[in-house]
Amino acid sequence: KRSKPMRETVVTPRVREIMDRRVISITEDEDIRVAAKKLLKGETNHLPVVDASGLLVGIVTTYDVSKAVVSDGRFRRVKDIMTRNVIRTTPDEPVDIAAQKLEQNNISALPVVDAGNRVVGILSAIDLGKLLPGRRWR
Amino acid sequence: KRSKPMRETVVTPRVREIMDRRVISITEDEDIRVAAKKLLKGETNHLPVVDASGLLVGIVTTYDVSKAVVSDGRFRRVKDIMTRNVIRTTPDEPVDIAAQKLEQNNISALPVVDAGNRVVGILSAIDLGKLLPGRRWR
Ligand SMILES: C[S@@+](CC[C@H](N)C(=O)[O-])C[C@H]1O[C@@H](n2cnc3c(N)ncnc32)[C@H](O)[C@@H]1O
Repeated sequence: KRSKPMRETVVTPRVREIMDRRVISITEDEDIRVAAKKLLKGETNHLPVVDASGLLVGIVTTYDVSKAVVSDGRFRRVKDIMTRNVIRTTPDEPVDIAAQKLEQNNISALPVVDAGNRVVGILSAIDLGKLLPGRRWR
Repeated sequence: KRSKPMRETVVTPRVREIMDRRVISITEDEDIRVAAKKLLKGETNHLPVVDASGLLVGIVTTYDVSKAVVSDGRFRRVKDIMTRNVIRTTPDEPVDIAAQKLEQNNISALPVVDAGNRVVGILSAIDLGKLLPGRRWR
C-alpha cells in the first residue's frame, strides 16, 4: 500500500478579510472636477460609479481624470472618462484570484460587489501587502 | 537532550525580484499636460521626476495631476504639483519592508534607486501579488 503524500493545506484568504468597506462613490452625470475633488479628499485613486439605485456601472480613477487634462475641455462629465467594463471581485473570492485580476489587467483596485451588483467594498493592491509571508493582518 | 525545534527558514524576496525595470520619468520644468500624456501613454500612475543627471528629485502621479484639474490653472509645471519627499526603496530591500512603506503611507508605488540615487526601477503594489502564497513568479 502506497503511503499518502503529506497534504499541505493552504487556507486561501478571501477578499472580505482584507477589503476596505469604506467606499466613496460617484454618479456618471457628475462634473469631472467633482470626481477629482472626491479623489483628492478621499485620498483614493478609485471611485466606483453607481447608478441611482447604487448599482455599479463604471469606475473612474485619477488616471481617467488625467485624460481631462489633455482633452482641452472636451471631457466634462464622469461618463466621458469612466471605464464601463469594470473588473470586479466578490467578498468570497480567494485573494489570489483577485490578485491575478489586478496583475493581468494592470489595475490597482477592484470594486467588491455582492450578488446584486451592489458595491460593498474596494480591494486595493496595497491591501495585498497584508498577506505577505511573515506578516500579520487585521 | 532536547530535540531542536524544526527551523522554518523564510527566504524573504528582495525588491529586485519583482520590480519593473522599465521606468518612464520626467523633469520638473515640464508642463503638467506633458506629464499627463506620459502617464496615459505608459498606462502608469507614477512618474519619477529626475534632474538633468538622472537623479531622483520628486514623484508626480495621476493623483497630483488631479490637483491641477481643481486648481483652475494655478498649477502649470510638474514642480508645482510633484511630491519632493519621495518614499523610495532599493533593489536589495526585503519586499515586506517595501510593502510596509506602501501601506503606511497609503501609496501604490515606490521608485527603486541605487546607491547613487539613480532610478533603476519602480515597485508597484500590483507586483506584490506575485508573492502571494501558492503563486509562482517569473
Ligand atoms: C490601465 S490602468 C493603468 C494605471 C495603473 N496601472 C492603475 O493601476 O491604475 C488605468 C485604467 O484602468 C481603469 N481601471 C481601474 N480599475 C479598474 C477596474 N477594476 N476595472 C476596469 N477598469 C479599471 C481606469 O478606469 C483607468 O482607465
